[in-house]
Amino acid sequence: MKGNALYAQSGGVTSVINASAYGVIKAAIQSPVIHRVFGAVNGINGVLSGELIDVGSQDPVQIARIPFTPGAIFGSCRKKLTEQEEFARLFHTFKQYDIGYFFYNGGNDSMDTASKIARNAQEIGYPLQVLGIPKTVDNDLEGTDHCPGYGSAAKYTAVSVMEATRDVLSMSADSTQVFILESMGRHAGWLTAAASLAFSYESNGALILLFPEEPFDETRFIHRLETAVADHGYCTVVVSEGLKTKGGVFLSASSSSDAFGNVQLGKVSGILESIIEERLSRKAHVCIPDYLQRSSRHLSSYTDWKEAVEVGQAAVDFATKQSCLGLMVIIDRTSNQPYQVQYRTIPLEKVANQTKAFPERYRVPGEMMANDSFKEYALPLIQGEAPNLWMEGLPLHAKLSLSFDE
Amino acid sequence: MKGNALYAQSGGVTSVINASAYGVIKAAIQSPVIHRVFGAVNGINGVLSGELIDVGSQDPVQIARIPFTPGAIFGSCRKKLTEQEEFARLFHTFKQYDIGYFFYNGGNDSMDTASKIARNAQEIGYPLQVLGIPKTVDNDLEGTDHCPGYGSAAKYTAVSVMEATRDVLSMSADSTQVFILESMGRHAGWLTAAASLAFSYESNGALILLFPEEPFDETRFIHRLETAVADHGYCTVVVSEGLKTKGGVFLSASSSSDAFGNVQLGKVSGILESIIEERLSRKAHVCIPDYLQRSSRHLSSYTDWKEAVEVGQAAVDFATKQSCLGLMVIIDRTSNQPYQVQYRTIPLEKVANQTKAFPERYRVPGEMMANDSFKEYALPLIQGEAPNLWMEGLPLHAKLSLSFDE
Repeated sequence: MKGNALYAQSGGVTSVINASAYGVIKAAIQSPVIHRVFGAVNGINGVLSGELIDVGSQDPVQIARIPFTPGAIFGSCRKKLTEQEEFARLFHTFKQYDIGYFFYNGGNDSMDTASKIARNAQEIGYPLQVLGIPKTVDNDLEGTDHCPGYGSAAKYTAVSVMEATRDVLSMSADSTQVFILESMGRHAGWLTAAASLAFSYESNGALILLFPEEPFDETRFIHRLETAVADHGYCTVVVSEGLKTKGGVFLSASSSSDAFGNVQLGKVSGILESIIEERLSRKAHVCIPDYLQRSSRHLSSYTDWKEAVEVGQAAVDFATKQSCLGLMVIIDRTSNQPYQVQYRTIPLEKVANQTKAFPERYRVPGEMMANDSFKEYALPLIQGEAPNLWMEGLPLHAKLSLSFDE
Repeated sequence: MKGNALYAQSGGVTSVINASAYGVIKAAIQSPVIHRVFGAVNGINGVLSGELIDVGSQDPVQIARIPFTPGAIFGSCRKKLTEQEEFARLFHTFKQYDIGYFFYNGGNDSMDTASKIARNAQEIGYPLQVLGIPKTVDNDLEGTDHCPGYGSAAKYTAVSVMEATRDVLSMSADSTQVFILESMGRHAGWLTAAASLAFSYESNGALILLFPEEPFDETRFIHRLETAVADHGYCTVVVSEGLKTKGGVFLSASSSSDAFGNVQLGKVSGILESIIEERLSRKAHVCIPDYLQRSSRHLSSYTDWKEAVEVGQAAVDFATKQSCLGLMVIIDRTSNQPYQVQYRTIPLEKVANQTKAFPERYRVPGEMMANDSFKEYALPLIQGEAPNLWMEGLPLHAKLSLSFDE
């Protein structure tokens, strides 16, 4: 089958989603069966509106910088397809641009979108190879050993916690004794768990991890924290933004009004800070990395970055060599020592709208801690430092021309 | 004058304060007039309690790792000397350890402490060379062109804002349009200004900087923000934690109660988030790097790191070659193109308890922006990337033996 390829990005970004974009572009340009390569502006929204960028018309210098650039180089979206009319518009664009290969790079919502597009293509008899390319810092996609994007966010989290812990340790004798870092991950604790990589066995006691999968137990939390401060002089707390009460409600759902009368949606880290300062009279510092946790390309894991490129290349490889009526590329870990992976595919329906929780087998029950099995799983993913382009003290990022084709 | 040297760290840490520690240690060990080198545990508190570490007794491998390690390797403190009795205890320790050289590495409060010690030494006729070594991420020390620590925190701020801006730009078409980063700097806007280094001239309009030196004008802020979103599709806001109302009150001073009945001290970024979401119905993301802004050693500026070492070395050089009855080492920029500095000294009293505000000559009046003169000043300070030691995907930090001498 011959035709053009279309690549689009969707959902929250990772620091290496553009490495996958680069993998797709590179492999698609080299493929003898793919003619032209397009990128959709702002994910599926760009397909709906017919806003496609011809990658071949872009400055090759800028294309070469894509894997060094955070964010989503073509723009992303939070769009869910709901109306049948939308599919008609999508296929109008596909036909207009002679798209035979569609690559959708995203998380579980995006795989639902890709799955629906594959089904519609079959229903209307439009020949379309549909490949999902996984990405998420949350690592909560089913069917794959891990997700591109997770290793870099995990490395960012571990390194940041190591560095900030040196800070709170320095200050702890007569000032701040508790450092709280609020981690992304509304439904899964994989990123919070990554903080455990920063701690050696002997100082594990000074770290508390609060997962969305473990209901918050204030009494046990206070006990663990006081023990840590007594033993080590300080305590580092990493809390998932999605920490819940025993009743299953987000702690952050509690809201209040500030002096201006504005409703303040509570941040879970702020609630913990209040508990620590008021009930224990200890000074705490709160850190919310937010977007930095998923966009700090300067600190990406080399392993993650390399795999992100390879997953994109593998998607093109599968799409041009076999029937792909709605598949997602997965990473299969074939060996842990030495760490080795291979790329395979699974049906998109097995991934769409599913969430892979941080499992009990990686936790120390009741101890608010990840165990050594988790460390064995996660350590290979943060190995190596992805290269950066620096120019006059700042990273050099790609800039595409956003005026779109035709 | 012969004798031993004592080095101590004080106040909030920087990512390169240990580079200055290393500079002092290296120069002091090489000095023919200094016998032994001690580090005080937790700043002046360690001198009060007689807890000194003999640097010569430490593992040289660990000493070599000190300039690659964030935090304060000997521990820091927030102690202010107030009682005459405390000076008696300090000089008891000085005599006990035959200290002839005292190096105090800190900010304006710490220079006050050093100044008092120098005065007391003269009063009681104890021969003591007292040298202050500047450090602060806030860059608010008087008398020096800039402070060691600022360049690295500025680089962290600029790089983080660049990377996060790519994120919000990617999401802005149908989701988050405003990214707010809360910067350290309670009384001076130098760090907030550093975000301007991340933006090229053409996208300056998508950046708003809120300095403690400029009272918050909500109407103008909303106007600037809406213009930015209309022109660029997104806006990045960097706000100093110490932003004040026209009445001179910290915005963050407004407090409220959460659902648990805990008093929540408002974070200024949360207050801006409320304004943006409620009055403008735009989705905003809030990032509070907190300790990461001053401890991200992995992203230190090479220029800053190198100067931090040199300032430490210069302190030893001055102390062993001239009378130093209470001086601080300063950095004097002798040329900007090419960037060149030399190290000189000024009396501690000229620095103690002073705060150098972010000056009007570096701002664009009413535009919530730093100007090109500021960029010319700050760009040389973020040049180059300080080397890191990596081991299995994580930074390798020094670990000293904390059991103290004798």
